[in-house]
Amino acid sequence: MRLNQLKQRFQSGEGVVNGWLSLPCAFAAEIMAHQGWDSLTIDMQHGLIDYADLLPMLIAISTTDTVPLVRVPSLEPGLIMKVLDAGAYGVIAPLINNAQDARALVAACRYPPLGMRSFGPHRAMLYGGADYATHANAEMLVLGMIETREGVANLEEILAVEGLDGIYIGPADLALTHGFTPGFDHPDGPMDDLIQQLIERTRRQGKRVGIHNGGAAHARSMLTRGCDLVTVGSDARLLATGARTLLEAMERTTHHQEGY
Amino acid sequence: MRLNQLKQRFQSGEGVVNGWLSLPCAFAAEIMAHQGWDSLTIDMQHGLIDYADLLPMLIAISTTDTVPLVRVPSLEPGLIMKVLDAGAYGVIAPLINNAQDARALVAACRYPPLGMRSFGPHRAMLYGGADYATHANAEMLVLGMIETREGVANLEEILAVEGLDGIYIGPADLALTHGFTPGFDHPDGPMDDLIQQLIERTRRQGKRVGIHNGGAAHARSMLTRGCDLVTVGSDARLLATGARTLLEAMERTTHHQEGY
Amino acid sequence: MRLNQLKQRFQSGEGVVNGWLSLPCAFAAEIMAHQGWDSLTIDMQHGLIDYADLLPMLIAISTTDTVPLVRVPSLEPGLIMKVLDAGAYGVIAPLINNAQDARALVAACRYPPLGMRSFGPHRAMLYGGADYATHANAEMLVLGMIETREGVANLEEILAVEGLDGIYIGPADLALTHGFTPGFDHPDGPMDDLIQQLIERTRRQGKRVGIHNGGAAHARSMLTRGCDLVTVGSDARLLATGARTLLEAMERTTHHQEGY
Amino acid sequence: MRLNQLKQRFQSGEGVVNGWLSLPCAFAAEIMAHQGWDSLTIDMQHGLIDYADLLPMLIAISTTDTVPLVRVPSLEPGLIMKVLDAGAYGVIAPLINNAQDARALVAACRYPPLGMRSFGPHRAMLYGGADYATHANAEMLVLGMIETREGVANLEEILAVEGLDGIYIGPADLALTHGFTPGFDHPDGPMDDLIQQLIERTRRQGKRVGIHNGGAAHARSMLTRGCDLVTVGSDARLLATGARTLLEAMERTTHHQEGY
Amino acid sequence: MRLNQLKQRFQSGEGVVNGWLSLPCAFAAEIMAHQGWDSLTIDMQHGLIDYADLLPMLIAISTTDTVPLVRVPSLEPGLIMKVLDAGAYGVIAPLINNAQDARALVAACRYPPLGMRSFGPHRAMLYGGADYATHANAEMLVLGMIETREGVANLEEILAVEGLDGIYIGPADLALTHGFTPGFDHPDGPMDDLIQQLIERTRRQGKRVGIHNGGAAHARSMLTRGCDLVTVGSDARLLATGARTLLEAMERTTHHQEGY
Amino acid sequence: MRLNQLKQRFQSGEGVVNGWLSLPCAFAAEIMAHQGWDSLTIDMQHGLIDYADLLPMLIAISTTDTVPLVRVPSLEPGLIMKVLDAGAYGVIAPLINNAQDARALVAACRYPPLGMRSFGPHRAMLYGGADYATHANAEMLVLGMIETREGVANLEEILAVEGLDGIYIGPADLALTHGFTPGFDHPDGPMDDLIQQLIERTRRQGKRVGIHNGGAAHARSMLTRGCDLVTVGSDARLLATGARTLLEAMERTTHHQEGY
Repeated sequence: MRLNQLKQRFQSGEGVVNGWLSLPCAFAAEIMAHQGWDSLTIDMQHGLIDYADLLPMLIAISTTDTVPLVRVPSLEPGLIMKVLDAGAYGVIAPLINNAQDARALVAACRYPPLGMRSFGPHRAMLYGGADYATHANAEMLVLGMIETREGVANLEEILAVEGLDGIYIGPADLALTHGFTPGFDHPDGPMDDLIQQLIERTRRQGKRVGIHNGGAAHARSMLTRGCDLVTVGSDARLLATGARTLLEAMERTTHHQEGY
Repeated sequence: MRLNQLKQRFQSGEGVVNGWLSLPCAFAAEIMAHQGWDSLTIDMQHGLIDYADLLPMLIAISTTDTVPLVRVPSLEPGLIMKVLDAGAYGVIAPLINNAQDARALVAACRYPPLGMRSFGPHRAMLYGGADYATHANAEMLVLGMIETREGVANLEEILAVEGLDGIYIGPADLALTHGFTPGFDHPDGPMDDLIQQLIERTRRQGKRVGIHNGGAAHARSMLTRGCDLVTVGSDARLLATGARTLLEAMERTTHHQEGY
Repeated sequence: MRLNQLKQRFQSGEGVVNGWLSLPCAFAAEIMAHQGWDSLTIDMQHGLIDYADLLPMLIAISTTDTVPLVRVPSLEPGLIMKVLDAGAYGVIAPLINNAQDARALVAACRYPPLGMRSFGPHRAMLYGGADYATHANAEMLVLGMIETREGVANLEEILAVEGLDGIYIGPADLALTHGFTPGFDHPDGPMDDLIQQLIERTRRQGKRVGIHNGGAAHARSMLTRGCDLVTVGSDARLLATGARTLLEAMERTTHHQEGY
Repeated sequence: MRLNQLKQRFQSGEGVVNGWLSLPCAFAAEIMAHQGWDSLTIDMQHGLIDYADLLPMLIAISTTDTVPLVRVPSLEPGLIMKVLDAGAYGVIAPLINNAQDARALVAACRYPPLGMRSFGPHRAMLYGGADYATHANAEMLVLGMIETREGVANLEEILAVEGLDGIYIGPADLALTHGFTPGFDHPDGPMDDLIQQLIERTRRQGKRVGIHNGGAAHARSMLTRGCDLVTVGSDARLLATGARTLLEAMERTTHHQEGY
Repeated sequence: MRLNQLKQRFQSGEGVVNGWLSLPCAFAAEIMAHQGWDSLTIDMQHGLIDYADLLPMLIAISTTDTVPLVRVPSLEPGLIMKVLDAGAYGVIAPLINNAQDARALVAACRYPPLGMRSFGPHRAMLYGGADYATHANAEMLVLGMIETREGVANLEEILAVEGLDGIYIGPADLALTHGFTPGFDHPDGPMDDLIQQLIERTRRQGKRVGIHNGGAAHARSMLTRGCDLVTVGSDARLLATGARTLLEAMERTTHHQEGY
Repeated sequence: MRLNQLKQRFQSGEGVVNGWLSLPCAFAAEIMAHQGWDSLTIDMQHGLIDYADLLPMLIAISTTDTVPLVRVPSLEPGLIMKVLDAGAYGVIAPLINNAQDARALVAACRYPPLGMRSFGPHRAMLYGGADYATHANAEMLVLGMIETREGVANLEEILAVEGLDGIYIGPADLALTHGFTPGFDHPDGPMDDLIQQLIERTRRQGKRVGIHNGGAAHARSMLTRGCDLVTVGSDARLLATGARTLLEAMERTTHHQEGY
């Protein structure tokens, strides 16, 4: 079976640089996959991407060695299993607030006896190899998002769920649920402290930490502060900021969009 | 932020005339949007429309001032959040039977602290503006469908849920769950009485009422009887009835389809 | 092989009532096909329809007995052959101005020795039957559009081309090329005379005449005036006019679109 | 209303031969539908098929008399109702472990008072007829998958749920949850015994049994052993095995894929 | 009718800043359209974009005031007319080598008597207004690409063709046909001289000049050197260069792609 | 640049085993690509495949080492260039009847000075490498189909066109244009003689010969008889024949389709 390079990087202590895909476009995904990301996460939660878009995007990433991950929109098990059958090598799930949520996530991602994933990895076997089913439980990366007060409080019980590889920190939602303005890269203050505590509590239990970042400088600092996987840059944001930079150079007043 | 014209019409006491989209076709949506509806509802429940179809349809409606709404197929929160992120300015959800259902609907539609909507309004910010997140809780229209005996019985507790703007009456399902033949525009009798009671109980709590209608005459009467939003005409039905009218004028015996 | 019902209607002297599809939407095509049209023409010229849309539309029409025709955007032979391989039972081609154009059209639509159509009717055999290739030259309807002064002048040489079943009159373009405002249903005057002459000259050579109409009354009159096939009603126009009628009944001022 | 030929075959004691669709491709579905299967099941669970793919596939099957079934990915009610509204004449649902699961499945598939299916069978009425709503509860086939130890233990309470037509046996998952290697066609041993018991216990309660098979020989034996519906052959597997057979005949060493 | 803002900018002596779209993705087009470009050109020649992709992209651009242009892949008239009917407000056509090519381009883009464009501007009327047909000949921008030795030699006869608004210079192909390496922004030397001559010869005949540029600095200089429209930046290139910049900041060695 | 493995096989005297794709389905293409074909040809002529389908299919094949070829529907240059820009490593073109046709084909496939291919190989550079443009003329395989009496007569002048790699024999059309029933694998008689002559005349000029076959035995014999590339098996036919074999084993009378 094709091994999950992310797990191998984790074990060797190398950080993972992850890109982000929000455009429902296989060719955009293929361009991104050729630039050298360790992994690319297709965002089915806030990206404009449905399962019918996901499939050609996963195929496009499979033309390279970049590892394909998917952020799912909810814990609905049918979709999570479809995402893995389609060849995603990892799942990031939103709103893991307690051990029950974490168990539901693991149930959808792991074959029995560890979970309840149903058997039928059609495209996953093309991508991973004929012995996919034997090794999938070990190779698939499963991360739960900690983004609420409840999730923060229950971190240890969440991490204790067998089959969960670790957490993914979404600073925007974490800020929102803690009464702050959503955004990335909070250099100081309570959000930064909270994030540091999440990292340390997770590492203490031997699990992995991924985090969303606004820019490369912050992402690099998060690698030194204990994160295993850092996301930096999304296709949609690269498009918008790149265009604005050009238009400013052309002295066009742009319709400024804070969104990206 | 682009304000929700429907809320403004409600406040000024003007009724809203809403069209209905069942065809998975962005160009059909764009044609409809140019005809002058106050709002168009993309029906993801009984319409033949998936999220991959929804996105270009929302874009098509955004070429005009018509307000885009979406009826979702269930309370699955992942899809509801995706629909709003894609730029819908309101959600109609089926089968709201009690306060718990209403709270689940509000949780998916409103940002914290009112709900649990996750942050990432990518297309919504293009459509609504850079300050979308600040105003979205106030501007998004959230209506729950009352269509069962349980929902009718629990109307007051449903309406008491903070963040729910009102109800949407689906006469066909309401008839079916009350032992009548599904259909629209029941001019007299128990269904009509039941609908009138729903309108009055809802207005008494200061909430909004929308209703599905079979024809314009009935829709106009419902505006005078206290409804805030009336749906009349769907793309699929306009197509079928328009074609049948032409074929009858051509003296062709048509395969009569009651469906539309 | 499934016989072409249109040819059978022609032979029995019955007129054909043809509907028109401009929306790139298989479900809209299926709704239309269930209403009782003798044939439906998928308009790849002015409709918003590409080959990728055409295929599911042809499949949708094949759920009924309605005969599927396609208007192609030009005489490019690759697309015409693809349209027939996909199961269209007839082709209407624009801008047939002389015998050379007509021969090019026939070459693309007929197998050798009559034409140069290449062999590979994959979906056409599913729809038409295993002996499709043997009978296709006889069953496929091939109509050339007469819409320029040159086409009008050369009508006899055009009709003399073996393998061409007849002409299709597009009154809008015919008016435009003769210095009149484009439109349908010219009740009197020079355009009406011109159309009548085209009908008569074509019938004199024993060929078929189809015509585009604005409304049912005009279409019925054209059947009595010698046309074999009359088009009335398009999906896009039914949608727009149906919506406007409803909105007028709701006393909404509509954005009036002359386009449909 | 178009009757469900599968129910008629069941009543006459004839077995149903069911094919399986995993490719998101309407034309592949149409080819399969023309080969003579009694029914074709579109697999939305492990097939690479989303609702946006399902709709044209259902239309493609509707060009023939083959009965369209759908395996759904989970018990999420919104999708199950959409599948039926789109014209599926039966639903196979995974992971029915107890009476509560069975009731949830029936609730999504049957109109009140038997279930909670919402009214709006837009394409279903085109396919089934104008009186679809009156007869749908009787005609739609609803099968629950028994694939866990819990499901096996609770079989009788599952079968006792009114509105469930029977069970569908997935040998691969059943093996996996019982500690065996996933696969089909276990000729002897404990899995074969378990399957035989499931068949007999189900027939004892007068319900139907369907089963997935690896090959025709096994499928035929299952018909004699009491199954009502046998699945044999999937489009994806036919493609892969057919290609490998050809390549072996060409003396090409193939990349052997166990997946199909 | 909605006027073509580009023609108004030309007349007022303001340069046009044009962006470029190569990704077949309506949402990417909508993001780009919100950044403030005067126009966006959808590249159907070298972009990965078919007509089925074009339609939702044109709709997406129509949510803003950015003017939509299309570069067509060849002079095939069927596609050029479809592009205009779909609402493009201008066409850039490759390989205009002589007056005959220019006349073929004009014939496809202009209504009679100036050209042979067929009447049926379905989406164009939604976008442009009900009086589209009356003003389309004046408002549509038609540019021919000069990219061969033959085209350079015949520039004056090309520009003399009535209905052609001007030329578009593709430096990559121009270099290739003149024996140089394809690329943009040749600061000195024979290619730069050649381009300057093309600009001056075109302006002498009172026609417009557009040009493709590699970067903003060059684009700005071309505006001062007499160009009316400068293209800078494509979605695909913004994505690739933006990602590489980020990955370099993350100290990832990238798979360097010269392509973008 | 990624070298064209087919050209390397030709030079080493190994035959190429080519598969055929007629289904518009990226996942079907990916399954096929994993089975071990030397090359796969996406058939845009008689396959049900448009450019919008082609792009994800080419991406899917690029997940393996199988070489992607495309048969185009005609000599329309815009599409041929798009096919190559999308990453096809070779083109098979129908109906090459004389040297002029062959020159038109070469013009569309080769960069100047050999041809007129326009520069912009966006996806081709992702697939082939950053130096694609330098080597593309040498690596792209260009084959013209000989399928008419005229083409047979003009074979030597066709083969003399610089930039044409050889011919592809379509026995079905060749039979049709010579007055025989279309089909493959004519073991004896005049068609077989004609094919043998084509092979020998082509080899005499040092060019390559490809041929379509019905079965593996015939394909193997054609390799020994001088062909360089043999096509055997199409996805659509594998599906149909595989299903029929299963249904016969199930003792179902099938609707026999000769088409596949």
